[in-house]
This record gives sequence, C-alpha cells and structure tokens, in this order.
Amino acid sequence: MFSPNTYIERRNVLIQTIKSGIILLLGHKNSPINHAHQTYPFRQDSTFLYYFGLNLPNLAGIIDTASGETIIFGNDAHPDELIWFGPQTKLAENASKVGIYKTQDIATLAIFIKTALRQNRQIHIIPEYRYDTLVTIAKLLHISPEKIALKYSATLLHAIVNQRSYKSAAEINEIKAAINITHEMFKTANDMLNEGLYEYEILAEFQKIATHRQTKFAFTPIISVHGEFLHNFNYHNQLKSGQLLLIDAGVESKNHYAADITRTYPINRSFNTQQKAIYDIVSQTQKEAIAAIKSGILYKTIHLGAARCIFNGLKALGLTTGDTECAIQAGAHKLFFPHKISHMLGLDTHDMSGLRGHATDHNENAHLTNILKYTTLTMDLELKTNFCLTIEPGIYFIPILIDRWESTKKFQEFINYSELKKFRDFGGIRIEDDILVTSEGAKNLSINIR
Amino acid sequence: MFSPNTYIERRNVLIQTIKSGIILLLGHKNSPINHAHQTYPFRQDSTFLYYFGLNLPNLAGIIDTASGETIIFGNDAHPDELIWFGPQTKLAENASKVGIYKTQDIATLAIFIKTALRQNRQIHIIPEYRYDTLVTIAKLLHISPEKIALKYSATLLHAIVNQRSYKSAAEINEIKAAINITHEMFKTANDMLNEGLYEYEILAEFQKIATHRQTKFAFTPIISVHGEFLHNFNYHNQLKSGQLLLIDAGVESKNHYAADITRTYPINRSFNTQQKAIYDIVSQTQKEAIAAIKSGILYKTIHLGAARCIFNGLKALGLTTGDTECAIQAGAHKLFFPHKISHMLGLDTHDMSGLRGHATDHNENAHLTNILKYTTLTMDLELKTNFCLTIEPGIYFIPILIDRWESTKKFQEFINYSELKKFRDFGGIRIEDDILVTSEGAKNLSINIR
Repeated sequence: MFSPNTYIERRNVLIQTIKSGIILLLGHKNSPINHAHQTYPFRQDSTFLYYFGLNLPNLAGIIDTASGETIIFGNDAHPDELIWFGPQTKLAENASKVGIYKTQDIATLAIFIKTALRQNRQIHIIPEYRYDTLVTIAKLLHISPEKIALKYSATLLHAIVNQRSYKSAAEINEIKAAINITHEMFKTANDMLNEGLYEYEILAEFQKIATHRQTKFAFTPIISVHGEFLHNFNYHNQLKSGQLLLIDAGVESKNHYAADITRTYPINRSFNTQQKAIYDIVSQTQKEAIAAIKSGILYKTIHLGAARCIFNGLKALGLTTGDTECAIQAGAHKLFFPHKISHMLGLDTHDMSGLRGHATDHNENAHLTNILKYTTLTMDLELKTNFCLTIEPGIYFIPILIDRWESTKKFQEFINYSELKKFRDFGGIRIEDDILVTSEGAKNLSINIR
Repeated sequence: MFSPNTYIERRNVLIQTIKSGIILLLGHKNSPINHAHQTYPFRQDSTFLYYFGLNLPNLAGIIDTASGETIIFGNDAHPDELIWFGPQTKLAENASKVGIYKTQDIATLAIFIKTALRQNRQIHIIPEYRYDTLVTIAKLLHISPEKIALKYSATLLHAIVNQRSYKSAAEINEIKAAINITHEMFKTANDMLNEGLYEYEILAEFQKIATHRQTKFAFTPIISVHGEFLHNFNYHNQLKSGQLLLIDAGVESKNHYAADITRTYPINRSFNTQQKAIYDIVSQTQKEAIAAIKSGILYKTIHLGAARCIFNGLKALGLTTGDTECAIQAGAHKLFFPHKISHMLGLDTHDMSGLRGHATDHNENAHLTNILKYTTLTMDLELKTNFCLTIEPGIYFIPILIDRWESTKKFQEFINYSELKKFRDFGGIRIEDDILVTSEGAKNLSINIR
C-alpha cells in the first residue's frame, strides 16, 4: 500500500475531473471454485486498488464529487470469523491507511444509492467484467443485468483511463520490482534449458520463485515449444533439440503492479540458420519500435512501423513479396504478426483492459462501443511521457492460418506460399520488454533479462 | 474421463429417479481475474463433471427425462481461436466421448428452455454458487437473480446427492491416486522440516510436486505454525524450534477427485510433554472414530463420539471437568473442537458442498433451507458402504475464543480456565485421513502418510 496521501491525491484529481454526481467503485468478492467457500486466490479490482488501495474482498467505495466525501462500505470480520482466520484489522483502521475516515456497513450501501437516486444524483459506474459485480450493480441500481451497460459513465471511464495511464515514480518502481523477480525466473529458465526437460518443470521453478518472493504470477505464463499458438497454456511437451522455447511470464509487485516479459530460446542454446534469420528480424523490429517511441507519437505509428519491419525482413528471406505499404494497408503482415505490438502495463498486465467490460452479450451495444474509444491502447492514442507499455513483436508460422489463407489464395500478391512451406514447422518467436515513455524517448526497463 | 458407458449409466439412474421434466445442468464459464480475458485456472462444476464428464468452459447439459434425450449445448472453437489456442477438438467429438450424440449451439439453449416452459415442462435446476451461473439461469428462466432459489428442484437435488454419495470402484481409485501424489507432498514436507525454514518454502515444494504430476491442489493448502486458526492461508512464518506445524493439503486426481490430508508435525521432530499429551488425544479420537464407522451408523454418532473422546482426554489433563454427556450436549467441547469431524470427499474436497448454493442473500429463504436438508453431511445422515469421507479431529487453543468465553464465564462448570492458561500459546493439532466406508466397517485410504 502507498501512503494515505497518494490515495487522497488520486481521488482529488478524479473529483476535480468528474465535478458532479457520485462515483461508485466496487471491489471484488472472492470467486468460488466449486463451492461458495472454496475460492480462487483473491485479486482486487485494479481501479479499486488505484483509488482505495485496500486489497480485501467485499468492499465498495463511494466518492461524492459535490461534497468531496469518500466512504468505504464494508464489514468488520464477524467474531466467529476470527476463530477461522485469526485476528483481523478493523475496517475503520484499514480505511484510515488510505486516507478515508468514514466507513459504513456494506448493507447500508443499497440505501445510500437509493437516496442518491431519489435526489437525482448521477451514479457514475464503469464497465464491469466479473459476474459478481454485475449482479451487485444491477441490484443496487434496480435494473436488469442486461441493461447495465446503458448506465456506464463515459466521463468516469475517460477520467480513470487518463489518470491511470500516467505512472508516478512510485508506480514505476513497483513495475521495476516486478521485473526484478521476473528476471530471476528467466535466469533460472535459461540455466536449466536442456533437451529432455518438460515445459512443466520450468513452470514449477517459476512458481517456486514467485512463492519464495511471496508474490504471484501477474498472468498465466506461456512456456511452450509451440510459441505459434499465442495463448498456449499447456505445459506437457518435452523439449527437443532444435526446437524453440517461448516463455512469456511475469509476476506482480507487492502493490500488484505487473511485469510482462517474453523471450524465445533455442533448446540447444544456439539458433539454426532459419531461426537466427527470423530472430534477427524480430529483434531488429523491437529495437526500431523502442527507438521510435517518444511523447506525442501515435500508437498506430509504432504498430505499423513494426509490421513494416517484419514484412520487409521476411521479404529479404523470400517469404513475402510486393509493395510493403500496400501489403501493410491490406493486412498481409497479419499472417505472421497477428497481434498488436503492445499493451499498456500497470496494475493490470493488460492495463485497464478490465475497463472494456466483460465478454457477455450485454456489452454488444452502441452505447458501450461509443465509450470504449476512451479506454486503452487504441490505434489513435498518443503515447505520453510516463506511460508504461510492452513492446512485443513476434513472427509466427501458424499452420492452421497458413492453410486457411493459402486455400483461398489470400494475399498471394504479397505472400510466397511455396517458400513458406520450408517454415511450416518453425513455431514462433516473440521478444517482449517493458518500456517507459520518457521525456527523451523510451527506456527499456527489462533490458537486462537475457 | 471415464468410459462413455459410465456417464450413460449415471444419467440413466438420474432419469429413472426424476421421472418427469427436463434436467438443466450448467457447466462453468471461466472466472475473470482482472479483465474478461485474464481468467483463473478453469475448474468445471463437479455435478456437470459427474454426469457429462467434459472439462471445458461454456457448456450446458440437458436431460429430457421423458424421452431420455440428452443434449450438450456448446460451441466449436471459432476459427480465430485456433490461432490463439491451437487445434481444438470439435464439440460433437467431445460429446461422443461421454456417450452423447446430440449437440447444439449454446445460443439455442434459450429457445430450448423457452419452448419447454411453454409446454409446461418442469425445468429441474440445482442451487448455484457462482455468479456467472446465477446470471445465466436467471436469464434462461426469465426471472430476477433474487428469485432463483424458488426454482430449485428438491427432487433433483436429492437425487444427485444420493447418487454422488456412493463411490464406484473407479471413483475410489481416483481418490487413491490423489492420495498417492499428496503422500509425496507430505513426505517432502517431513524430510525438509527444520527450524529456520519458512512456511512458503514448503508451499513451493508442494506446488512443484503438483505441477510435476500435472495436477493442481484440490484446495488452498494450510501450512502454518498457527494451526489454531482453522483457515489460515498465510505462509510467511519462519519455523521455530518447539513449535508445531499443521499441514492440511491435497491434490486432484486426473479426473478431478480430491485427496484431503492433515498432519501436525513438531518442528524439532519430537513433541514436548504438553504436545505429546494433546497429540495422543487427537490420535486416539481419530482411531476410535474410524473404528466406529460402519454402514448404517449416524454421522452424529461419529461426531459426538469424537467430541466425547476429546472432552474426556482433556479432562485427564485437568483442562475440562464435570459430566461429559452434559458438557457435550451443552457444546462445551466446541472451545477446543469447533468444527465437524468430517466432510464427504469426492469430486469436491467438501463433496457436494456446492449443492448448498452460494453465499449471497438470495439463499436465505425458507424454500432453500427446506431443501438443503437433502444435501450432504447433516447430523442425521446414515453412513453407507462406499461413502468416502474425511475423519479429522482436532484440538485447538484459540486465544480469541478462550478470552471471549472466559470473559462471560461461559461453561465454567466444564472448563478449567486457570489450567487452560498453560496452553494459551499451544497452537492446534489436527489429524485428517480419507476414509472409505466398507461392508466390514471402514478403510483408511491414507494410513501410510506419516
């Protein structure tokens, strides 16, 4: 937790931006696994953490932008819970640690909201991505879960995204701390790399390091000889000589800031000619992307620059052909580089992605689409000093995608399908570092990770 | 996964019991952590696993008890998902593995339910404990989430609990397999036990073993020098000579059956006199409880027998006094032994606890209370051959609870508070094994774990 003043200042900025109405931010409940009392490890909502700092379940925060009054709604542990969980800090004491001196029983939140609604006060809420939050908000606002998206506050969403995008020195230190522990993980992986090893043996060492450092993974790691499948969460393969191993991993810092690093290693410690050629393109693409970053540049410029670099690199190898600009505009590079070059990094690995809402159909409406343009890394976003983001170019040879494109002769003016056959079983290479936008350009915070 | 016939037979038993209406069982969705696409490790609902076997998100199963028709609702992976996750088995192929030959798009489930409701067919549902399930069922049945409990089917609940309570030979083998891996964990803990070690170092080794065996914990382990706090999920203490370490842990088998074992170790490998005295009572209590188990005996008999044994043991040490039967009836033993002796064990660690519903207020109604009497280990339940359950007596010295009771002179006729002061910092001891009820009595499946 940071100092009480940190949270007071963050809330003051928000109050000055929003100006009217009441801001309602819900913390998370525990997520049940297979019954109500067997739950996943608790993770607080990042926006709640940002403004209220308390890493505990079953809380809600209210900020009245008119009076400036801030209230934490929650409960002290029931006396019987003390038997089960040991001594617990009182809610009022917890609240005071984040500069809040008014607390109320969570059961009174419904009345608070009801009263505010009667007084025609606007209740500012942001998109939710957990079903517990959905059920709670729907009940508080007396509307059906399907209609909740109509109540999202674009003003609040915009203000939060804007504020959370700029990282303070303390936040940057948190990200650096997460990178340090992640560095240990990659060093260990690098040391143990050998044919015959199973992917899960590396996962086990990563878990050990995270547990010894009393932290958790910031996201489910990818440790795979099939780096071409971008979200591959299996770990059953045995490493074979000549293969590549892609590792994408990171832990949380003490205050829940993420590191997110990818390296691709040759199992037998040296790349073959083909691997070296592709690795060099990815590495060069990353160098150029980082070098291009400066305050004021459009995210699109960085992303498309990387696409261009990859397309040109592959052209030199005979895999692509034709006019690069035309190919990029058409999207031909997406056969090899089907994801974005970057995401924001902070309290979330994909920072503020939660503010896009969750994946149920109620989000598929014009209102939400309209306000989502405020959220995070859109193509038209200008990067600014103290933004923190990943730069993660990759080149993948995805047989399913190659076959699909080839069967319809898609972009055959840009892609040399016959040459591509030599790379069919190549796999994938990605290099990802954590980058801070500075007044001079950009700083690679994870450059020391080999 | 078991053979298709296993699932066909299980569903046939259910059809024959329920006789009319349509059974609707929802599988789990992924649970978001801090945005929609960053999710906790997937765990299927155990009842869904029991009847439909498929360990994948976003499925629903329908059994029409009139026609016997069984349908899996779900979706094949979207072509774009194949890029992200690699090749995926088709829904129809997955369904055939569990003996189901009709599959439909999950989007058609709403129409299916609507049609059935129009035909006045009863839709049998069971209590849910996840909010995603709550939102889905409420939408399918066109009622508000608060009213869902009125729709629970006591018939279905009763039938499922009855069926799942009796473990087949294959299920018992799964539990044994989980116990075998758990055995490795305890052996490792026992070997590494030493003063100076941190609790989290043992946790890290447990994670490593589980990951190497390509499985997961069945529940969050307790590894604590403060065994007196029953649900203590911190691991930051350094082990000191003279302390006790309580370890309560278990993994899932390949088919998701749980082991659940507790041992309490002296850090310096031998108990002091006080520790030995308490350990012997707990151990004797467990032996007597296991010896008392036979088909037809009431759970209450086992539980109260253990309470009696603990109370008498403590009486011999001068900590309790007075008439044992009166003390047990009054509940005086609960100062030392505040939990139940047992829970059912199977696909869930606390088997079928999910069928009690979740912890939101909508469950606090008479209808639910009425049907919950069918659920799992109630005091009046008769144990039967092939039930599988834990036997886990414990004696704890919980300072908060002792102070609370002493301050109101609670049960001073049964408790010797002045003598108790000598045990104030004792901590807690629990011994837990996994027991199968047999035609001859009971078999301790985990007896080899030291």
